[in-house]
Amino acid sequence: MSAGAKKSERPAGAGKDLLGLADLGGSEILAILDDAAEMKRRRKETDGALGDLEGRTVCLLFFEPSTRTMNAFAAAARALSASVMSVSAGAASSVVKGETFLDTARNLEAIGADVFVVRCKSSGAPHRLAPLLRAGVVNGGDGWHEHPTQALLDMFTLREHFGSLEGLHVAIVGDIRHSRVARSNVWGLVACGAKVTLVAPPEWMPEGAGTLGAAVSHDIDEVLPSADAVMALRIQKERLARRSGSKRFGPYLGGDPGPASGAYSSEYGLTESRMARAKDGCVVLHPGPINRGVELASAVADSPRSLILDQVANGVHVRMAVLARSVRACTCGCRQSREAGGES
Amino acid sequence: MSAGAKKSERPAGAGKDLLGLADLGGSEILAILDDAAEMKRRRKETDGALGDLEGRTVCLLFFEPSTRTMNAFAAAARALSASVMSVSAGAASSVVKGETFLDTARNLEAIGADVFVVRCKSSGAPHRLAPLLRAGVVNGGDGWHEHPTQALLDMFTLREHFGSLEGLHVAIVGDIRHSRVARSNVWGLVACGAKVTLVAPPEWMPEGAGTLGAAVSHDIDEVLPSADAVMALRIQKERLARRSGSKRFGPYLGGDPGPASGAYSSEYGLTESRMARAKDGCVVLHPGPINRGVELASAVADSPRSLILDQVANGVHVRMAVLARSVRACTCGCRQSREAGGES
Amino acid sequence: MSAGAKKSERPAGAGKDLLGLADLGGSEILAILDDAAEMKRRRKETDGALGDLEGRTVCLLFFEPSTRTMNAFAAAARALSASVMSVSAGAASSVVKGETFLDTARNLEAIGADVFVVRCKSSGAPHRLAPLLRAGVVNGGDGWHEHPTQALLDMFTLREHFGSLEGLHVAIVGDIRHSRVARSNVWGLVACGAKVTLVAPPEWMPEGAGTLGAAVSHDIDEVLPSADAVMALRIQKERLARRSGSKRFGPYLGGDPGPASGAYSSEYGLTESRMARAKDGCVVLHPGPINRGVELASAVADSPRSLILDQVANGVHVRMAVLARSVRACTCGCRQSREAGGES
Repeated sequence: MSAGAKKSERPAGAGKDLLGLADLGGSEILAILDDAAEMKRRRKETDGALGDLEGRTVCLLFFEPSTRTMNAFAAAARALSASVMSVSAGAASSVVKGETFLDTARNLEAIGADVFVVRCKSSGAPHRLAPLLRAGVVNGGDGWHEHPTQALLDMFTLREHFGSLEGLHVAIVGDIRHSRVARSNVWGLVACGAKVTLVAPPEWMPEGAGTLGAAVSHDIDEVLPSADAVMALRIQKERLARRSGSKRFGPYLGGDPGPASGAYSSEYGLTESRMARAKDGCVVLHPGPINRGVELASAVADSPRSLILDQVANGVHVRMAVLARSVRACTCGCRQSREAGGES
Repeated sequence: MSAGAKKSERPAGAGKDLLGLADLGGSEILAILDDAAEMKRRRKETDGALGDLEGRTVCLLFFEPSTRTMNAFAAAARALSASVMSVSAGAASSVVKGETFLDTARNLEAIGADVFVVRCKSSGAPHRLAPLLRAGVVNGGDGWHEHPTQALLDMFTLREHFGSLEGLHVAIVGDIRHSRVARSNVWGLVACGAKVTLVAPPEWMPEGAGTLGAAVSHDIDEVLPSADAVMALRIQKERLARRSGSKRFGPYLGGDPGPASGAYSSEYGLTESRMARAKDGCVVLHPGPINRGVELASAVADSPRSLILDQVANGVHVRMAVLARSVRACTCGCRQSREAGGES
Repeated sequence: MSAGAKKSERPAGAGKDLLGLADLGGSEILAILDDAAEMKRRRKETDGALGDLEGRTVCLLFFEPSTRTMNAFAAAARALSASVMSVSAGAASSVVKGETFLDTARNLEAIGADVFVVRCKSSGAPHRLAPLLRAGVVNGGDGWHEHPTQALLDMFTLREHFGSLEGLHVAIVGDIRHSRVARSNVWGLVACGAKVTLVAPPEWMPEGAGTLGAAVSHDIDEVLPSADAVMALRIQKERLARRSGSKRFGPYLGGDPGPASGAYSSEYGLTESRMARAKDGCVVLHPGPINRGVELASAVADSPRSLILDQVANGVHVRMAVLARSVRACTCGCRQSREAGGES
């Protein structure tokens, strides 16, 4: 447990929003992880829901497909006795009527939303929304930018397993360039004293990767022997080059399209034979959904090294902590002002 | 507060259904507004949900896109501790299997629905459904016909702001012909003693508008100086004439297609300069979603004159009152008969 | 009430899963029906929800359209104070991202699902899933295979009406070949001592129908005089031959496409005149949604003979029993192991 994680010692600046890990210091991140550990402990002791967010409403604004993130936030909200409102950009929503995103959010706030969880294709959208709302805004993944609660649950799972993040060596492997998960993890892990190595084919390594605070490599086999944990990123299949006829694209010749699936798997995939050469005790993470046989072999995903389902379970505790933190930061404001809404 | 609004004095005919305001007298409407005020007061005093509809189920049957109405009803139901069932005409519903609307509703009633909120394209559908169900039916908007809870929340917001509806002058501006919101408001406001002026281009004024009990005008600038409140209706963009090349349709030449967007805005839109010539204290309402820059300038929507977000917030209280009223009217019947359902 | 239905006498093998009725003996089926009767009794006595599944989560995994089954399971879950998670194969789900079904389920289990209700096009999918999960799996309809909770609610409704299933003669009429409802009912009813006659045009009778334990007929008028209950199956309109011009397909010449709608109705439909020749007290069942005028005349569906809405209402009680039974079988395991998820 980090020092300074008790509520009363929380820095006054702890905000209603969680937009990304880039702006948070290590102590604030560790305080959230401590809160999540406390949520996990309290939940284990109770059979029903905790009462922390009784009478509050969490609004899920998901404009991109999601099963695990959306359901984990919903489960976290219910585990704290909050109500859940869910609005997606589907046919049953007035998002189809061309209302601005801000107007939609302000309306949902007037209806009663105390915290929004926003997932969208547009990088930075939650950041633009947050200062214009009294309600809290939690970034549930914005474009290629950040996915802070995913990184927090990864860090929670690693800290729980290893006892501390300090000095831990974490390799993140895959399409770093297009990964909001990688970006949030680098910022968060480095802030908490871990050493991160980004591993990717050159065309999937973002420019200026070196400035993120992580080491950079194009060779997973070189990195693996010293890694305590290796996180395989999901490969978006549309970013893989297609085999055409009997010819295949060379692994790194494609530039933008990236290597073909077989080439990627053989050079970067976490296969059984590759993992056999990893450090003893090296664990495997993955943000899901897994492409079995591409970035991760089935046998590895299901091996004792895998913490993947722990990540998912911990995601609920982390989101409980994040939602409760957001509402706590609003207690002086949002509920009262909402109730006073019609009195002007 | 209106006299005669106490529960015990409620007329015996107070029904399980709220189908429209055309059939309700002023005293019944004011009684609902009083109930809504009471809901608002009680909710402010409580941190969690009120227990009024504990064990009851509200079924949202929405066959048209909706964010604010559907979520406001859901929030109202949860604020009274009711369960919410939601059925839309999407892919996951047996509405796609060609079952009749009545059979769908009767099945959902057998599953446990105590009140239905129905939104559909077909004018009069809730009226046809209501007498065939034991459960209550609340009209959530039927075609171009009525949208009674929207009008009630508009009236609630005006009464709260001005103290009374009696003698108030309300201008409703826009596509009156196709607006269920306008229709319900005229009937409701007139029944409660307000004076209403309908303002629209000729092609958007319904035939026989004069018989509704409202004044009729084609010139917003003539009406504005005497209006206490002006309600801008949402313009359906598909009803606006399109500019073609460098030519544009004249504002009223198009007949059915209506004026072009720019023409509409300049002749009827609530712009800043136009509102500067309005009466002091004139407030602005809008049922949402707003087309900013068409029927309403952004600066006006966000000005102190705007009660738009108060409308949305009050919509929850009004719907709490409507749902509770519906279930109250059923207490002798629906729950017991449902429970006895299988005993025949 | 059957003997041996009390919890303490339940056979040790009572499982976390309900995959089909083919594998259950009559005593186990009757024990579930007894549980359902007890749920119905307890629910009538209580105004709010029962606390049996407080803190548990029921996950609805529906990959085929459904209104009544999905809502009935959701209502059952809420009536026991469980939380409901709902995942369909729509746009908002990562099922679109190509994750395996098992991975999706394992993730939802890690998020907190204690029981899954699975509906899918693939026969046997719930059976393959169940042994790989700690959570319970309830089959909500798999392809043309089984729909056990539908059969249980049919049997519950018949037993409630007639007092016992023993010796009851039930005719099931329609497209037996493609009906999971028929299959589950035959297995269940026969196991509980009822006599079943399957009635269908030859092309809709499955091969080996005689081996299911039921009698087989192609003439409803021959069967009706001795039937205590007749269950009309929903006719999938796409399986009916189309009339082309003035000619029509002969009733049984079409082979696969089946009879035309009018021909089906006149030879197998439960019309008023046909039902007038039925046994006194013969009741009518239908799993819904009804094609009025095809397999069932409107006047019959709405007659006193019809138990159709009782079936729907009883479906909630039966599913309460099934969900509670599933979680009970898991008490030693699923909750604790979920909570311990991150401790490895």
